[in-house]
Amino acid sequence: MSARILDGEAFASQIHRETATRVSALLRRGITPGLVFIRVGEDPASRAYVSRKETRAREVGISSRTLVLPESTPLSSLLAEIDSLNADPKVHGILIQSPLPSTLPNDQVYARVSPAKDVDGFHPVNFGKLLLGDPSGFLPCTPAGILEILRLGKIPTQGKHAVVVGRGQIVGRPLAVLLARKAVHADCTVTLAHSSTPNLPSITRQADILIGALGRPLFLTQEHVQPGATVIDVGVNRIPDPNSPRGYRLVGDVDFPSVKTVAAAITPNPGGVGPMTIALLLSNTLRATEDACR
Amino acid sequence: MSARILDGEAFASQIHRETATRVSALLRRGITPGLVFIRVGEDPASRAYVSRKETRAREVGISSRTLVLPESTPLSSLLAEIDSLNADPKVHGILIQSPLPSTLPNDQVYARVSPAKDVDGFHPVNFGKLLLGDPSGFLPCTPAGILEILRLGKIPTQGKHAVVVGRGQIVGRPLAVLLARKAVHADCTVTLAHSSTPNLPSITRQADILIGALGRPLFLTQEHVQPGATVIDVGVNRIPDPNSPRGYRLVGDVDFPSVKTVAAAITPNPGGVGPMTIALLLSNTLRATEDACR
Repeated sequence: MSARILDGEAFASQIHRETATRVSALLRRGITPGLVFIRVGEDPASRAYVSRKETRAREVGISSRTLVLPESTPLSSLLAEIDSLNADPKVHGILIQSPLPSTLPNDQVYARVSPAKDVDGFHPVNFGKLLLGDPSGFLPCTPAGILEILRLGKIPTQGKHAVVVGRGQIVGRPLAVLLARKAVHADCTVTLAHSSTPNLPSITRQADILIGALGRPLFLTQEHVQPGATVIDVGVNRIPDPNSPRGYRLVGDVDFPSVKTVAAAITPNPGGVGPMTIALLLSNTLRATEDACR
Repeated sequence: MSARILDGEAFASQIHRETATRVSALLRRGITPGLVFIRVGEDPASRAYVSRKETRAREVGISSRTLVLPESTPLSSLLAEIDSLNADPKVHGILIQSPLPSTLPNDQVYARVSPAKDVDGFHPVNFGKLLLGDPSGFLPCTPAGILEILRLGKIPTQGKHAVVVGRGQIVGRPLAVLLARKAVHADCTVTLAHSSTPNLPSITRQADILIGALGRPLFLTQEHVQPGATVIDVGVNRIPDPNSPRGYRLVGDVDFPSVKTVAAAITPNPGGVGPMTIALLLSNTLRATEDACR
């Protein structure tokens, strides 16, 4: 048996098409959705991520630009830039590319973005609305993208047991809350497991839907998976690879070759969760624009 | 075998004593912690709750008063009252007693309280900080009180499996997140189960710590409980009782007589979670005052 592949690129394209259609309607009304990326420093991975997001934004008709600030930018200057973008009516979405230099306090920076322009869903108010079940907030893009994979992949969720492995603030914790909501494409019993969970396979083997968001390369193997489960791999881990020009390669949290022989459906990695995160960023930006112009 | 009783009244008294000691230190500096209750309408249960909280506040040295507004209060007037209390430096904590009349939108009202005076922990920013693990926010009093029962009752939590039954926004969801935190008195594997969970006993019998927060009278019985588990009963349910002068009596979610024969430790109800909620409200108010006067 080999699992059905949950093709994140194909699902993301579907969302991009829907976004592009609605962006066209705004453009006809003379409204151009505007997205600004802030990148601090010259981390090569951050450069690549932002560049990929800019390309996708352009493809769906969203106007984007990147504000590049030097590694040594003081907090006050960064906050002043954010204030100015918050006040600019042509800017509907603001994304601060992580990681920030270690000299800058993440929480202060993310909390400075206006919640109405926080298309990354990282402002405390948006996290609070998520926990409260208030749909007026923006959901963080990766958990929201995973919900869309389940929906578009026609994976049943109601009454199913989802096990989320990893309790990070950006994926594991919010995803657990979202999957447990009383909603059509949720309504799971949810277990949040993590590095301190003893006898992890006895927990993960209960999962109808298993999410790897632990950040440990190839950690989830066949022994963790109930036959017939759906497996979603969120991990992005660097492992040394002397054959790569960069000296490393990226792998997920799931040992794809062994798991795909027992799972019923599985995301590839890359090509699973990653593209969905960008698709949800752009649909959040569209919604921010629609909300601002209502 | 009969379970050890987790005496919420005794634990609450311990917290009240600590609060009173720190309040005394503030009073010596000429600072009086001030707490204002807002009660809209004349619901008898709300009157009783507020009156009990006022008594406890007085006992620990916190100055409190209650603003009583008529059932017909328009939203704009209520928001104006909140704004005025937000601006008053003698007021450190504001609690809006629920339930509000159905004409008033809960979310708008709770979000109007300054997050720094939101000693109930109901503002979206405080819920967001909870989800993010940012300790600068105020935790909602009932989940925080349950954590204190586990701590003061010396119930081991690290690496244990906690099952929270009920996904309400005030208790179930935030408590699940808090129990999963990487922290000394948390670090549980957490399952969030609810009304749509099939074969619930197969889930709850895995619990080392079982929390009933479903709002169904006497729903959790012996068959739901693993021998040796700790059981916490959050439920407050009215059931008809012709022998009571009020025509009803209050019962929890846990069938205490049957469960106490298998559990190792159990909260009584009343006298378990209820008193802790008030104790945490007053310790939040103390902290709000200390933060404001720093």
